[in-house]
Amino acid sequence: MTNARYPTSLGTSDAETMSLMGQSVPDDLMGKVGFGELSFWLLTLRRPSPGELRVFEAVLAGLADHGFTPTAIAARLTYLSAPDSLQGALAAGLLGGGSRYLGVTEDTAKFLSAALAGASPASDADYDELARQAIRERRASGAKVPGLGHPVHKRQDPRTPVLIRIAEEEGVRGPHLRLFEAVGRVAPEELGRALPLNGAGVCGAALADLGIPAELLRGVSLLARTAGLLGQLAEELRRPVAQRMYMDIDRNAEYVEPES
Amino acid sequence: MTNARYPTSLGTSDAETMSLMGQSVPDDLMGKVGFGELSFWLLTLRRPSPGELRVFEAVLAGLADHGFTPTAIAARLTYLSAPDSLQGALAAGLLGGGSRYLGVTEDTAKFLSAALAGASPASDADYDELARQAIRERRASGAKVPGLGHPVHKRQDPRTPVLIRIAEEEGVRGPHLRLFEAVGRVAPEELGRALPLNGAGVCGAALADLGIPAELLRGVSLLARTAGLLGQLAEELRRPVAQRMYMDIDRNAEYVEPES
Amino acid sequence: MTNARYPTSLGTSDAETMSLMGQSVPDDLMGKVGFGELSFWLLTLRRPSPGELRVFEAVLAGLADHGFTPTAIAARLTYLSAPDSLQGALAAGLLGGGSRYLGVTEDTAKFLSAALAGASPASDADYDELARQAIRERRASGAKVPGLGHPVHKRQDPRTPVLIRIAEEEGVRGPHLRLFEAVGRVAPEELGRALPLNGAGVCGAALADLGIPAELLRGVSLLARTAGLLGQLAEELRRPVAQRMYMDIDRNAEYVEPES
Amino acid sequence: MTNARYPTSLGTSDAETMSLMGQSVPDDLMGKVGFGELSFWLLTLRRPSPGELRVFEAVLAGLADHGFTPTAIAARLTYLSAPDSLQGALAAGLLGGGSRYLGVTEDTAKFLSAALAGASPASDADYDELARQAIRERRASGAKVPGLGHPVHKRQDPRTPVLIRIAEEEGVRGPHLRLFEAVGRVAPEELGRALPLNGAGVCGAALADLGIPAELLRGVSLLARTAGLLGQLAEELRRPVAQRMYMDIDRNAEYVEPES
Repeated sequence: MTNARYPTSLGTSDAETMSLMGQSVPDDLMGKVGFGELSFWLLTLRRPSPGELRVFEAVLAGLADHGFTPTAIAARLTYLSAPDSLQGALAAGLLGGGSRYLGVTEDTAKFLSAALAGASPASDADYDELARQAIRERRASGAKVPGLGHPVHKRQDPRTPVLIRIAEEEGVRGPHLRLFEAVGRVAPEELGRALPLNGAGVCGAALADLGIPAELLRGVSLLARTAGLLGQLAEELRRPVAQRMYMDIDRNAEYVEPES
Repeated sequence: MTNARYPTSLGTSDAETMSLMGQSVPDDLMGKVGFGELSFWLLTLRRPSPGELRVFEAVLAGLADHGFTPTAIAARLTYLSAPDSLQGALAAGLLGGGSRYLGVTEDTAKFLSAALAGASPASDADYDELARQAIRERRASGAKVPGLGHPVHKRQDPRTPVLIRIAEEEGVRGPHLRLFEAVGRVAPEELGRALPLNGAGVCGAALADLGIPAELLRGVSLLARTAGLLGQLAEELRRPVAQRMYMDIDRNAEYVEPES
Repeated sequence: MTNARYPTSLGTSDAETMSLMGQSVPDDLMGKVGFGELSFWLLTLRRPSPGELRVFEAVLAGLADHGFTPTAIAARLTYLSAPDSLQGALAAGLLGGGSRYLGVTEDTAKFLSAALAGASPASDADYDELARQAIRERRASGAKVPGLGHPVHKRQDPRTPVLIRIAEEEGVRGPHLRLFEAVGRVAPEELGRALPLNGAGVCGAALADLGIPAELLRGVSLLARTAGLLGQLAEELRRPVAQRMYMDIDRNAEYVEPES
Repeated sequence: MTNARYPTSLGTSDAETMSLMGQSVPDDLMGKVGFGELSFWLLTLRRPSPGELRVFEAVLAGLADHGFTPTAIAARLTYLSAPDSLQGALAAGLLGGGSRYLGVTEDTAKFLSAALAGASPASDADYDELARQAIRERRASGAKVPGLGHPVHKRQDPRTPVLIRIAEEEGVRGPHLRLFEAVGRVAPEELGRALPLNGAGVCGAALADLGIPAELLRGVSLLARTAGLLGQLAEELRRPVAQRMYMDIDRNAEYVEPES
């Protein structure tokens, strides 16, 4: 506990020094800590192990950019309109990171955590049983099972097996990932059709195994996307397409009477 | 040249594959490329050398978080008001990344690039002479020399010598950094007082030496800050202070007549 | 139905004309339609009656500005950081308009609409009975009754009786407002304590009676707040306080070890 | 002068009352002040005359919505991605309100104000002479004359003569508007070709004549656009097109090698 008015464990500085999380920025961090590592540390206030870091950065690579998504288009159009304000274009892109597209990651993690609460599965059979129960409860309440299916990768999301393998290699394939795999195994029987384990969902499971709180998982997606959006804006600067996008839409607009 | 309607070298995917910058996301990037490296690659469309990457990540560490800055406070207050929308709190924080606080990085890079255009300084003496000319021209036009002075670090910004040393170690201390150092050497005589080389300014010089275009330098600051703001929001979740900040301000508000 | 690729009933223009909702902007709207009226029209695609407009504008006046709220502070601090981007400061302020502060308006409207679905109350007694049922169901599900109580106006929100009176005067006091009043009447008995009808809640009821869909009610609050935030930014320009706010917070920051 | 820590002339409240600019919100504003009037008052801290209000609201009508502009598209795509956060979609749309599209209004006002500083033109001939000088100085410095030309309304912007007429009718056609008209008269001779007076530019001149500071003119455009964007989002809710826009763009994306 602390009695400080505004306590913080993040950045502080005085005339001679600058520190962050108790580390000297120039002496302990600059040149010594990578950006993925620093980001994990800032989110959790603990330094990741090399294995945890590899999984964390694999997640970031898996979520960084998916081409002309609505958020990438929004960022480019905003940059077209307000080229003096790169921060505005970036913010506009991030604002699309809401429940619909980024929600899968956190929804999956929450679904898995709730199913794991109080359970102590030991074998794949235990996980399968737990997955069956969780799916049935979810469907009984009328809700969809999060993390299943993908609009483009209809048979398999190529990120899924790779992230599971990396977590296994690094010794951080924990209960959330194991339960998510079990969901994949039992889903065809439970749901009557095969649906692939979504790559954004497997990212949520892996991040939950790393101990990142569910409320912050969307933040990891947004961090990944920040890099992706900067890539989009850098490309827009090199080879602009936003004006053409705008024109293509404007040309196909058609006025219709309000009541029609 | 390309005749594609919307050409892109970033993310693409089909039912089986997902790629980014021509690399397979699962096979070439996940588990193999760190997040700092991926971010540099997205910005420039080329993979950094290990030395370039170390400088780039040192810059990101130097700019990530500086405590309760206006942007950190804005992000926390927005999270207090709209806890359902982490992306909104993050965007609100990034929107403070404009000319006044983040501008130093790009202003310094532009100032140095302009001075270097057409020049071919070879020795420290050449750089000193170039710096003197640039400072004089700048002051003749009534403008301040960017990258000099810091509100807190009045004698020396602790990041400055460290970033220069790292760049030197990695063999990427180029003309922008060398000219910025020269600005530091001649400024006392030219300006009549000693002002430290600002850490955000030296970051701008280092990034310019890495070949990142001036228009995108603010983007690097924003990327660093995204990690810092996520740290702020994670801390707000663990140990909230925004409500107290709001109350402290509200309690000290006082109505005054419009004309007073 | 329409087969247009991108149908719209909003703005269109060609070399000679400019129209909006089928009206000529210069001939039918400029100088002839007030801004509140135009805003209602844009939201609903129908022109309000004078009585509806008076209620709508009373709501906007009731929600425009409440002093140094978290959103007003966030907007001012963003303007301090990025004075070159007024749109960024405004956006930062609006981003605080989420579930916690602006949610009351829409939550109340949805609560009332759900209770009214299928019912046809005719008398105050009918409304009281409906209110009792709705409160009981709500509490049985463990949720709070929306629109009751206010952190400052603990006995009565001064906006509530005024908005009801204006709606009555204009002949647009409909079932949502009548049910909300009934909630106020029966709440003390049902909840065991007196809680005032919240002003933001009564705005939600009044807007629902005007036929504005629940999904857009937050938009009305945001419109009101846009005017309020511009007032805050105009005042910040005339008599700046954001730098002092920042300094007051920064001075009271205190570093604490991560584990404390 | 005031010694208050955080002075404000805007919203204040206590248990019984709520006030704004010294007015009781329930007694003096609700049901008595229209939204355009309140907005003007908040921006300037003075209540507009009926004539000033008519001009102000004519400007708002002229700037509210122009169809599928980049900002409208960005708002719709953000709403598609994050439908749980209407404030985010609105903010994304407003973030496009930067120098390129909204800049004309303030650039024109600043250009006119600078030309008027120290001058006291009395006749149309005086204004013509002042306009000629201002255009020549502007062009000598290599800059464009703001407020001339429009991408769609190539011969005449239909808003221009109407706003001038309304200002004349209301007795608030002041020096900025008169100088802007003079710019229109002398421009063909000075520039060698006819360019219409832009509607956004004439709005800037009219607002400057109303005494609204140049730094806040963009705010008036943003207020108008808030209503327009809410119209866009309401229409997206009724008849969605954003998914189709996204699909149309995505389908026409084509990967090209980075170096091409």
